[in-house]
Formats: sequence, structure tokens, C-alpha cells
Amino acid sequence: MEMPTPDPKVLAKKPQLVERLLQVLPEDAVIHEEAETRAYECDALTAYRCPPLVAVLPANTQEVSDVLRICHEFDVPVVPRGSGTSLAGGALPTADSVILGVSRMSEVLEVDYDNRFIRVQSGRTNLSVSGAVEEQDFFYAPDPSSQLACAIAGNVAMNSGGAHCLKYGVTTNNLLGVTMVMMDGEVVEIGGAHLDSGGYDLLGLICGSEGQLGVVTEAALRILRKPEGARPVLMGYDSNEVAGQVVSDIIKAGVLPVAIEFMDRPCIRATEAFAGAGYPDCEALLIVEVEGSDAEIDEQLGLILQIARKHNPVELRESGSAEESAKIWLGRKSAFGAMGQINDYMCLDGTIPVSQLPYVLRRIGEMSKDYGLDVGNVFHAGDGNMHPLILFDANKPGDLEKCEAFGADILRLCVEVGGCLTGEHGVGIEKRDLMVDQFAPDDLDIQMAVKDVFDPAWLLNPAKVFPLAASSGRRAA
Amino acid sequence: MEMPTPDPKVLAKKPQLVERLLQVLPEDAVIHEEAETRAYECDALTAYRCPPLVAVLPANTQEVSDVLRICHEFDVPVVPRGSGTSLAGGALPTADSVILGVSRMSEVLEVDYDNRFIRVQSGRTNLSVSGAVEEQDFFYAPDPSSQLACAIAGNVAMNSGGAHCLKYGVTTNNLLGVTMVMMDGEVVEIGGAHLDSGGYDLLGLICGSEGQLGVVTEAALRILRKPEGARPVLMGYDSNEVAGQVVSDIIKAGVLPVAIEFMDRPCIRATEAFAGAGYPDCEALLIVEVEGSDAEIDEQLGLILQIARKHNPVELRESGSAEESAKIWLGRKSAFGAMGQINDYMCLDGTIPVSQLPYVLRRIGEMSKDYGLDVGNVFHAGDGNMHPLILFDANKPGDLEKCEAFGADILRLCVEVGGCLTGEHGVGIEKRDLMVDQFAPDDLDIQMAVKDVFDPAWLLNPAKVFPLAASSGRRAA
Repeated sequence: MEMPTPDPKVLAKKPQLVERLLQVLPEDAVIHEEAETRAYECDALTAYRCPPLVAVLPANTQEVSDVLRICHEFDVPVVPRGSGTSLAGGALPTADSVILGVSRMSEVLEVDYDNRFIRVQSGRTNLSVSGAVEEQDFFYAPDPSSQLACAIAGNVAMNSGGAHCLKYGVTTNNLLGVTMVMMDGEVVEIGGAHLDSGGYDLLGLICGSEGQLGVVTEAALRILRKPEGARPVLMGYDSNEVAGQVVSDIIKAGVLPVAIEFMDRPCIRATEAFAGAGYPDCEALLIVEVEGSDAEIDEQLGLILQIARKHNPVELRESGSAEESAKIWLGRKSAFGAMGQINDYMCLDGTIPVSQLPYVLRRIGEMSKDYGLDVGNVFHAGDGNMHPLILFDANKPGDLEKCEAFGADILRLCVEVGGCLTGEHGVGIEKRDLMVDQFAPDDLDIQMAVKDVFDPAWLLNPAKVFPLAASSGRRAA
Repeated sequence: MEMPTPDPKVLAKKPQLVERLLQVLPEDAVIHEEAETRAYECDALTAYRCPPLVAVLPANTQEVSDVLRICHEFDVPVVPRGSGTSLAGGALPTADSVILGVSRMSEVLEVDYDNRFIRVQSGRTNLSVSGAVEEQDFFYAPDPSSQLACAIAGNVAMNSGGAHCLKYGVTTNNLLGVTMVMMDGEVVEIGGAHLDSGGYDLLGLICGSEGQLGVVTEAALRILRKPEGARPVLMGYDSNEVAGQVVSDIIKAGVLPVAIEFMDRPCIRATEAFAGAGYPDCEALLIVEVEGSDAEIDEQLGLILQIARKHNPVELRESGSAEESAKIWLGRKSAFGAMGQINDYMCLDGTIPVSQLPYVLRRIGEMSKDYGLDVGNVFHAGDGNMHPLILFDANKPGDLEKCEAFGADILRLCVEVGGCLTGEHGVGIEKRDLMVDQFAPDDLDIQMAVKDVFDPAWLLNPAKVFPLAASSGRRAA
């Protein structure tokens, strides 16, 4: 993936820049030695690496504002970073950029059970948001697989989803307001802790804008009362297409489970070896979970099992206990890790209309044969958010390039059937060049003109989201 | 409310403009005789009236595109209009503007039960969207009180809600994609019929932008399976504050009824006289509705009734039949009409954190005494979306002005307690000058700069949303 050539004028400013940053931040919050900046050279898209000019770790909104004001003055690009779990290279530095990490900003600022919200600093990890309210039996709904590590800042930047978003919606449906610092250091409040807001929906625009419009330092998040209970069911089928049809039929029937997850044989095997979740050995596995009181669960499951049985399952098993349920979910949540232990992989993130699942799964299988690269599928099937894992060998010359070409073809297929390039990982650098397959040049121009409004000098995460050729007239370098 | 002075240069263009419009539209779709343009002189904020220069009624996206291209060429402002039910003056013309009405665009374009969406032309009324899918037991969730008349175009423009949005979300949560025509006539597709989309969330930005960024001609909407059953409960209390506390306690408990509606004594009396819904005669009435199977309903209601009883209700009555339920809702949905039969009123639309309900209701009562104007309260209490109706006498000189001042004070109170100026009616002209109470000048500047991107000449509904003084440098006139 091509990155813009670093601007030598910016590189030359490093000594003065570091000096100025040290005037507003403690010494250990300004990382500028080459050996140390290397810790920030990549995110979870590890195929691409580049140490930044400097990394800073501010502790609050004021410090973020100070940092941005200085970088704005020095005309230095800034790449905001949550926990660095981005699978799309959203937090990949350029050599002439300052990485702004929010990891020191993890405080809970306010919990309001009466109005069902929590306000946190944006560096707080996703899981620890729920942790802060679980004593009162509340939780924060969006649950990316990386929830143990990923930060709310990154969740907001990428509009992250998760297994349970089928019922509860993704980040944008659970975000009430943010404190954001503009590139010139100005601090703005967008949204609040209540319904809607006057004027345009800037909060919706900020959510999913991949750190290109401002740096979110605090967020007010909707919290929900935990359901009384939940029960997953394992459904095994002897083909991907049939399992895809079951998903489509459940959605069509209008039942709304809290999650419908899908794994194919390569993922089932790897996960079973890694986590011992008790998964059956079959071609395709669905984990369908419903929530509520026992009576509610029985009723919903009744409908779902009826649909499942029509398609001749090779396995159909309701979880019998809380331990069994936890094991089932542990398997699913560690699937990526399990695959990573046996193979290099590239994880894609396209979305498609649910009714297209059987067709798209079949096409991916055919393309896998054409490219000679295996694919594992493990994804949020209920809302059509696919995560094909393309397996490749990082040490084999040409394999990464072949894998990228294959991935691009899969994402084009998603767009073709009425879906889109990204569900929750963002465009980052990974899908930057594919944006032309989804958007006409005029559409991209409007999107870039919106960035002009917030960041006229294009200093915030400038080499992401848009094809470099399209944004070249706007970026400084 | 001040409106910009019409531009005499624009007025002089009328003959040529009409001639050009007649080249792209049938004769009966171009309304230019003064007697006929009067039909478009106001929307549901009837206190303000002004006939437009011309009104056009295109029948499809192509005709909308033709109209906008011509108006763009002639530099004539365009005010898009759904069904004209806006309570905030969103569709109020200026004398030098073309009203673009979408009432002839009411076709169903596509119904896809597998993927749970419907695609309609934007002039289709809200209720007839549900009507198109009810045979298959599906429905479209957002249900404004005006749903019999209001158009999807207006719902999208104002991000409309409704009584049942507590559970299902407002328009933005149920809108999947739009076809929109830009001011220069270009047709763009935003979003789709699937999860999320690459790049910035422009769909979220369009929703609620009050016809200022483009004219939405088609919309893909999420449809849902109808619940098995639903049951409302009437709860009467002897003070507004206590009823407000019950709402706050239900929300705090984490139960999620599908609706929590609130009416105070003036509204209960007027509605009862008008609709005979069987409401008890008390200070404050709550209608709380839950959905699901009988078992689910019993269980949820058990929790809710427990909370209700703690606060000593003067009445607590579950609906015993489908007819009784229909009567209860007919009363609520006709409350505005019932009030209108006995009084002139101005309907406000502020939102507040739910826990502030008791305080805000008390303050409104105090302000009512200070201003010497009565207030009726009937609103969506569950999500803190208030609709105080200020009663006044349109024939009494000075009463409207006093009413507006009182209304402004109530909305400022909403902002003060952490809420906002508008929940679902939009800013329009009504709350334009109050935007400075919610937003700093720099915030307004950013919002206006976003409009610059979509409509550089500020021809689309230019005199709305922003204070005239703030937008004067941008508007042509």
C-alpha cells in the first residue's frame, strides 16, 4: 500500500516541535527517541509499518488541545490512536506525523443511572465501560471482539459494532455526545446526554469519521439494564449456503435474536483446538442467542428452532448452563486469535444484504479456488457484516499481494450485491483505493469538502479513507 | 418572526422562470397564478404566511432534477415541502422562492421482506408506508402524530419521532438510504439497504437537515415484523411532578416499554371531550405500552405496575381488549387536534434528560403563572421529548408575541438542564433565533460551512435553521 512521501520540511522541524510539546506535556508523555517511537509503528494491520516522527500521550482534553494547537502551528500531520487495534490501518503513522495516543485518558467522568448514560474519557477500553456499571446491573452494548483492548476513541472513530449489535445497534446508536478537539486546538461539545440536538446531526457525522474531523477526548454513552438471562444455541449445517439460508430465514421471519454469528469449518477447527468450546465438527456453525426472562427465551427459541430444523441441521444444541454459554462465546470471541496462531491472515469487513449470504459465501468459495488461497469465515451474520479471513504466508514472496487482490475482489462483490466496503473496521489505508468502487468522483469530492470544513489544512489523519490521488490537491504533502 | 426581504431581481425573473419550468413539467404541475400559489403560503405553523413565487409538483427524481437545475441557473431559492405538516415553519415559503412539493411522488418502488426494507418515493405518507406491508404483518416504526398526512420527505428532513420511538428509535434509526437531488440537479445515492456505508456518515447528516442540503426523492426504510400483541396501561396521578417521577423511575429501572406518553389535566379534559377515550379526570395521565406475547407483556407490566403503585396512583388500568387499546391511542393521537378546537396554541418541541421531568414541569407551571398564559402538556415522556402547548388568543393583540417569548423561555430552560431546542419538529423558522442559546458562534459557523459544501449558493431553504444575522453573509438576498 502506497503511503505519501514524508515531507522533508516537516521532518526538519522535529527538534523545535519536541521542545514545544515538552512545554505542555510531562516528559514521559512525549516519545521522540527513534527506538521508542517504534512502539507506535503499526496497529493491528501489521503488514504495514512506519514509525512516527513523535508520539504523545496527553492525559486530558486540555493537553490534547495544547498538542493540536502546536501541531497546527507547525503544520505537522496528526494521527489519532485509540488502542491500536484497527484492522484497517486507521492508526498507521506516516513518517512525518505525530501519533496522538489517548491511552492515558481512561477515567470515568460521570455515571447517571437515572438518565442511563456514562461519560468517560475516550481512552477507556470498551469492556471497562461495562465494568464501571456492572455492579448496578447495567452494561454498554457495542461489543467488538477486541473489546478487552480497544478504546472508545477507536470505537467512535470506526463506528464499531460487535456480536450483539444485531439487537442493540452499533456505536452510533449508543453514542449520545462527545467532547472533541478541533485541529486548531478549539474544544467543542457535540450532542449531549439526551435525545437529538438542534441543527445538523454533526454527532452522526463525527462517529465513523476515522479521526479525520477532530480528536474525540470524552464521550457520553447510553447504558442499558442487563437482560435477565440469555441463552445461545449452536446450529451445525453441512454447507455454508444452507447456514446462510437459515440466517436469511430467521431475519425474514422478523424474529430479532440478540446475535447471529457464523463460523465455517476452517474457523471451527482452529477455534476448537484453541479454546475447546465444544463446537461440533461440521461445515458451518451458527451461534444464535436470545435474551430475556426464561419464558421470553423459550418462546423466541421455539420460533428459531422451528426454522433451524427445516434445514436439516447436523447439530442443534441449546446451552444448558451459564458455564456452557460462556464457553460458547469464548470460542467465538477468540476465533480471530485462534486463526492467527496457525496462519497469517487478512481480515476483511464487507457488509451485504442478509438475503445475499448464500450467494456471496458460494462466490467466495469459488474465488478461493481461483486464487489458490484458503478462506475462513467468521462473522456477524444477522446484520450481514462479513469477516472473511484470507489465509496467506507472509514469508512467501507475492502472497500478500495476491491476498490483497483477492480481498479487493471480495469487497467489490459486496458492493456489487448492494452492500458496502466496511461494516465496522473502517476504510483506513486498507480500503482507501477501493472507495472508487463504491463512490463516484463527485461523491468523494463532497466527502472531502466536508473534511475541508473541519480541518482545512488536512492535517488530521490525512492519508486515510480517500484514495491518495483524489486527496492529493488537498493534502499538504 | 422576521423573514428576509424578497429579492426584486428574483421576483422579476418570474415570467421566464415559469416558461422554463413548463418545458420540463406538465402544465398542472407548475402553479404560478397568485390565487393558486396561496395554497402553499404556510405549513402547520399557521401564524406565519407568505405565498411563494411559484409552486411545482414534480412526479419523479428526473423532474425534481430538472426543476432544481433550472432554479440553480436562475439563482432562485427553493423551499422543499413534504405534506406541509411542519410545526416549526420548515416549509414556509419566502416571496422570492419556488415551493417544491413532493405530494405527487407517492409510489412504492420496492418491497423486500427478505432484507426487511421498503423503498418509496418521498412524498408517500408515513402511515401508507406501513399500509403497503401490513398484509405480511410488517410495519414502519416511526409514528409521528401527523402520520396520516405527513410525508416521508418531511420525516427525513426533520428526523421525526413519534409515540413508539422510545423502543424503535426515530427516523434516523430506521432510514437505510436515500436518493437525493443536489441544488445543481445532480442525482446522488446515499446509503443503501444494508448495514453502514464507507466514508463519512452523510446519510445521518442528511437526516434532520431540514431540506437544506438536497431534495430527497426516494428513501429505503427498515420495516419490522409486527409484535404479537401490545397492551397499554393508563396511570393517573394527582400531580405532574409525581407522574414525571414515575417516568424517570421506569427508565431508571431499565425496563423499555414501547411508549410512555404523558398528558396533563388541560389536555386530558380537551381530549376526553373530543375523543371519549375513557381517560380518568386527574392532574396527570401516563399511557405506558408494552409489546410481545401475552407472557412477555405480563412480565414487563408486572415490573412497571410495581413502580407505578409506589407513587399512589389515583387510577391504574390495563387495557382489557383491542378495542379499548385503540380508543386509548386514538385519544392520545388526537390530543393536538382536540386542544386546537378550544384554543389557539403554539406547540413546542424541546427535549430534556428524563430525570429532569419533574423539575421542568414545575418550572413550566411557574412560568405559566408569570406570563398569564395557560399551558397544556402532552408528550413523549419516555425519551424526554416534551411538547408543551401554550394557549393564546390569536385575535388578541400582543398575545402571540407574549406566547413566543414564553415558548423561547421554555426552550432555553430545556437547553439549561442539558437538553435541546428540538426533538422532532426541527428548527425551521420557529427556533432559528434560539440556536444561539444552544450553539456558540463557531459551532454555528461549522454547521453553515457544511451547508456551503452541499449548496454553495445557499439556495435551498436558506432562511431556516440559522439566525438570519449569522447566515446573512452567505445567503444571496
